[in-house]
Amino acid sequence: MAQENLSVVLHSKGDLRLENRPVPEPGPNEVLLQMHSVGICGSDVHYWQHGRIADFVVTKPMVLGHEASGRVVKVGSAVKHLKVGDRVAIEPGVPREMDEFFKNGRYNLSPTIFFCATPPDDGNLCRYYTHSANFCYKLPDNVTFEEGALIEPLSVGIHACRRAGVTLGSTVLICGADLSTERLAMAKELGADFQLTVKRGDGPQQLAKTVEDMLGTQPQITIECTGVESSIQTAIYATHAGGVVVLVGLGNEMATIPLINAAVREVDIRGVFRYCNTWPMAIAMLASGKVNVKPLVTHRFPLEQAVQAFETTRQGLGIKVMLKCDQNDQKP
Amino acid sequence: MAQENLSVVLHSKGDLRLENRPVPEPGPNEVLLQMHSVGICGSDVHYWQHGRIADFVVTKPMVLGHEASGRVVKVGSAVKHLKVGDRVAIEPGVPREMDEFFKNGRYNLSPTIFFCATPPDDGNLCRYYTHSANFCYKLPDNVTFEEGALIEPLSVGIHACRRAGVTLGSTVLICGADLSTERLAMAKELGADFQLTVKRGDGPQQLAKTVEDMLGTQPQITIECTGVESSIQTAIYATHAGGVVVLVGLGNEMATIPLINAAVREVDIRGVFRYCNTWPMAIAMLASGKVNVKPLVTHRFPLEQAVQAFETTRQGLGIKVMLKCDQNDQKP
Amino acid sequence: MAQENLSVVLHSKGDLRLENRPVPEPGPNEVLLQMHSVGICGSDVHYWQHGRIADFVVTKPMVLGHEASGRVVKVGSAVKHLKVGDRVAIEPGVPREMDEFFKNGRYNLSPTIFFCATPPDDGNLCRYYTHSANFCYKLPDNVTFEEGALIEPLSVGIHACRRAGVTLGSTVLICGADLSTERLAMAKELGADFQLTVKRGDGPQQLAKTVEDMLGTQPQITIECTGVESSIQTAIYATHAGGVVVLVGLGNEMATIPLINAAVREVDIRGVFRYCNTWPMAIAMLASGKVNVKPLVTHRFPLEQAVQAFETTRQGLGIKVMLKCDQNDQKP
Amino acid sequence: MAQENLSVVLHSKGDLRLENRPVPEPGPNEVLLQMHSVGICGSDVHYWQHGRIADFVVTKPMVLGHEASGRVVKVGSAVKHLKVGDRVAIEPGVPREMDEFFKNGRYNLSPTIFFCATPPDDGNLCRYYTHSANFCYKLPDNVTFEEGALIEPLSVGIHACRRAGVTLGSTVLICGADLSTERLAMAKELGADFQLTVKRGDGPQQLAKTVEDMLGTQPQITIECTGVESSIQTAIYATHAGGVVVLVGLGNEMATIPLINAAVREVDIRGVFRYCNTWPMAIAMLASGKVNVKPLVTHRFPLEQAVQAFETTRQGLGIKVMLKCDQNDQKP
Repeated sequence: MAQENLSVVLHSKGDLRLENRPVPEPGPNEVLLQMHSVGICGSDVHYWQHGRIADFVVTKPMVLGHEASGRVVKVGSAVKHLKVGDRVAIEPGVPREMDEFFKNGRYNLSPTIFFCATPPDDGNLCRYYTHSANFCYKLPDNVTFEEGALIEPLSVGIHACRRAGVTLGSTVLICGADLSTERLAMAKELGADFQLTVKRGDGPQQLAKTVEDMLGTQPQITIECTGVESSIQTAIYATHAGGVVVLVGLGNEMATIPLINAAVREVDIRGVFRYCNTWPMAIAMLASGKVNVKPLVTHRFPLEQAVQAFETTRQGLGIKVMLKCDQNDQKP
Repeated sequence: MAQENLSVVLHSKGDLRLENRPVPEPGPNEVLLQMHSVGICGSDVHYWQHGRIADFVVTKPMVLGHEASGRVVKVGSAVKHLKVGDRVAIEPGVPREMDEFFKNGRYNLSPTIFFCATPPDDGNLCRYYTHSANFCYKLPDNVTFEEGALIEPLSVGIHACRRAGVTLGSTVLICGADLSTERLAMAKELGADFQLTVKRGDGPQQLAKTVEDMLGTQPQITIECTGVESSIQTAIYATHAGGVVVLVGLGNEMATIPLINAAVREVDIRGVFRYCNTWPMAIAMLASGKVNVKPLVTHRFPLEQAVQAFETTRQGLGIKVMLKCDQNDQKP
Repeated sequence: MAQENLSVVLHSKGDLRLENRPVPEPGPNEVLLQMHSVGICGSDVHYWQHGRIADFVVTKPMVLGHEASGRVVKVGSAVKHLKVGDRVAIEPGVPREMDEFFKNGRYNLSPTIFFCATPPDDGNLCRYYTHSANFCYKLPDNVTFEEGALIEPLSVGIHACRRAGVTLGSTVLICGADLSTERLAMAKELGADFQLTVKRGDGPQQLAKTVEDMLGTQPQITIECTGVESSIQTAIYATHAGGVVVLVGLGNEMATIPLINAAVREVDIRGVFRYCNTWPMAIAMLASGKVNVKPLVTHRFPLEQAVQAFETTRQGLGIKVMLKCDQNDQKP
Repeated sequence: MAQENLSVVLHSKGDLRLENRPVPEPGPNEVLLQMHSVGICGSDVHYWQHGRIADFVVTKPMVLGHEASGRVVKVGSAVKHLKVGDRVAIEPGVPREMDEFFKNGRYNLSPTIFFCATPPDDGNLCRYYTHSANFCYKLPDNVTFEEGALIEPLSVGIHACRRAGVTLGSTVLICGADLSTERLAMAKELGADFQLTVKRGDGPQQLAKTVEDMLGTQPQITIECTGVESSIQTAIYATHAGGVVVLVGLGNEMATIPLINAAVREVDIRGVFRYCNTWPMAIAMLASGKVNVKPLVTHRFPLEQAVQAFETTRQGLGIKVMLKCDQNDQKP
């Protein structure tokens, strides 16, 4: 095994470096992974640009990256379900304690959880990385490494849909901030039936009415991904009585919303924090071909060009930028 | 059967009259009831004082009253489960259409529902009243008429608890606006383990901390009954991650709340609109003796003194004022 | 409107007749429909061949048919959401009473429900038929009448999947009795990933192991559609701990099953009785193109050839036989 | 700390010994407990009498006991929520792996779970015992050690009620095998509203009718605790359409039951395996005084008289026999 471990390390706000770190040794319940594909997330760029997200502050050098897949190259002594050579997708959050949240099946809410590239925990944008074997999921032969890496952002969607109760035949409104033509076209390609571009000056109640007119009915579920106050207001007005608004986007700490409108129509308001128990479902979805995430990867860079890759993401070019960490296999 | 039907009729804002109306005839699926006990609700007083609640406006004379029980004196031709002499509690909301809400078991959300004493539908503060037999529930011998009438306000609590998922052992915070010593003492008597009186100047986050200190843990569930913005804020901050805030109190149309705090801790925000499917459970609770609502009735007036009874409620005296509609039986 | 109303009437076991009946008049909450497409169900054939199903006995002439769609030709005085010319799918079960089951959203369990072609209630295999408007669902332009008629059998599947909790990515085993090559090929075409043909002598535990080997995991959900005891046993053994077995097929009144195996692995056993609240979801599924039921129709007959159509179904030819009731429009 | 650790060890079928074992050292996430009260369970006696339960066979000496409470006397290096002196109740099942069941909140189904006194895992009928700190729950001052030990059997009831969906006002039938006058009197004292003693020759359908007549309605939920085939049959016939039968009692591997009756009335059949996430709820219930388990303890023995205590349980005397492990504190 190579003894160099090139890693993308954020030292402080604006100070992103490529440096060699030691290849770690897996603990008894861990596996050592040779990283293959790691997507760049908006949060990675945010840490780079601002040195923090909310209360999470970069105070010492931290490896970035948490949308990842790789190949098992060494197996801890207690690991039974993985072996050398297995291709795996990595769930970046690993509970450290068997606390009430973990026991209840909502380990994403565990306050002491380890999470890749959330300070002070290192991420996996590097050549070699160790991770809890129980949070590495074997990929079927027909699921690529890049699809494996995309399970992380897909999990955000799965968790939001579960919290919302989305099922076959649900009428769903997605409020997204994105006005990029390329992204809107992709949304259409990947399944949106209707699109509505919001104009400055459109009032929330008026927009809600427009949505109802387009769909022929009010959506049972609205997934709000912008965090913008007026969009949250629209989400509430637009949703059918007895329905659900899920908050994925995060805006200002305080928001002014039509709470009575939601309350008396029993429109529930539910937030999401990351995800839990999504990898097995995501793998089943990808393996069956029911979901196609491949077109989302629009740029690829070898790990050595990580800074350029980050710059591409920062500029909002394309959709998903993928870093290729394995020098001998840069395929999807 | 007596041919007079003394009724408490609101003609317009401030104009409350006792007048005789014809005794109605039950339709095939209805029963004619001789009313026994009818509680006065804050909404009855609100219609009297303001002539409206939100978009519900009194535009023609309307009989008040919707917390009611009575005795069956005539049975419609298609009614099978009730007979003359049965003592029943009345569920005031009766869906008019087999619409999607009714089909889904959430008929309280049906926009065309009939509801006693919500304009333009007449209530049952009178001597004789017809109602859908399927929304009249036979009272066991050990449940009094007044307990039967109190099922309506109890149902608000049951529905809120169901929406919240309250179960045995749940830690629940109830935010109530009421500073009356008498009412606080009653809350204690009926089961509250701790009480905290909010002082002007207490900040929501500070109050949330005080609640946690008192309980030794954050409440899993908060039932907010004031509708006051600062109290809703407290409710969110106080609730445990993964928990639920239920909004029972209604305040201003728009509210400014710490939405991100709720979202990232997956604290759900759920409103309630009246209730559905609560009468059978309420009767089982009362019949088993597990819940004691009798102490809530602090005042009783014969129907003839309805105006005096309304005035008593308006002044906030006591807890529940009960009108006794049966001249021959004024017992609880 | 034509005054003849050709109808397929079962007089008694084996005595199926085509006869003219009066065109009915819709009640205030009903619509009169000109029937378009009606599928023949196994239960229709069973009534014809045996004169009964379990405790439901044909004691007087009964119109058959309950998988149906048609066009509104007359609207009852109280109907608001439908108008003449609307194309609708018909939900054959209409609750007669606002009983506890209806109030709870499980109206399929209401013991007094009206149900097309279940004695003594007439079905809709005829030219003109009246039905509760609230149980007629408008078809979008891109959903054909035949798809509308197929919503009934599709609803059995939807209800079973709901009871099972099937969601995107679920691993599901379906035990079906059918060994017809044509039907197995259709199952494959419509989405089955694997198929296993059971041989005489295969033991339930051995079969369960074979299923696990094929899938690479135990199915979380098994939908048992045969009603055969050994297949129910297989279903239990095969299902993953914490999973669900749904019983769709009905066999003998008593069944001998490995109840402890199910109990200690918390594999739930759930039956289904018809369906409720499925039409809106089914229409959304069909309109979106996510589900394709069109290939299921393998035979079509004009209403006048109903006996020949029934004979075709009785012989097990093809998959779904459709009767075309509108003389002027025999298209799908 | 004393260096002797008197322990109740089952060497093989019928061979129960009191012997000294070393005092164990807690690992980083463990606590060392001085045991206080340990109840004897039917399964302890069964292992003693038969050397096995189903596939769990005693092949090497095993300490018995799993209904237990004690005091923390040493704390592992990573433990934060407990300190020396804390009084705790012990949850005997501790998942060893972060497998799918643990991640989903159903860790009781984890096949590799550690469980006290299930071969080959040692129990805690001894003076000193180490346990995962996360599965030790601090007792409030107003909950005794014996109540803490009784949380284990209480948890079986809580888990069964949760699986059944029991809530305030539920009508519940409990089928228990026990004909002991003392136990029936206790059931009455602790809350049963009605009792029905089954006589040889009573048919399941007839019994179901008798239950309905007694209750005035069919129970929504039946909790079957005998495992006897005829009782399971009664449970199904007796339960209301749309209800649930929970199987707590375990009988023969195969059972013949009226499966169609359950299926077409959508009466779900659900088993239970031990419990999960019950200790916090049980502590809240005991601390609030809403549940009183104290009368269940009818016999107490010092640890030294363990064999006599086991003999008492074997003879079915009293209800719960409690072993007192702390020589300096034999109070409840």
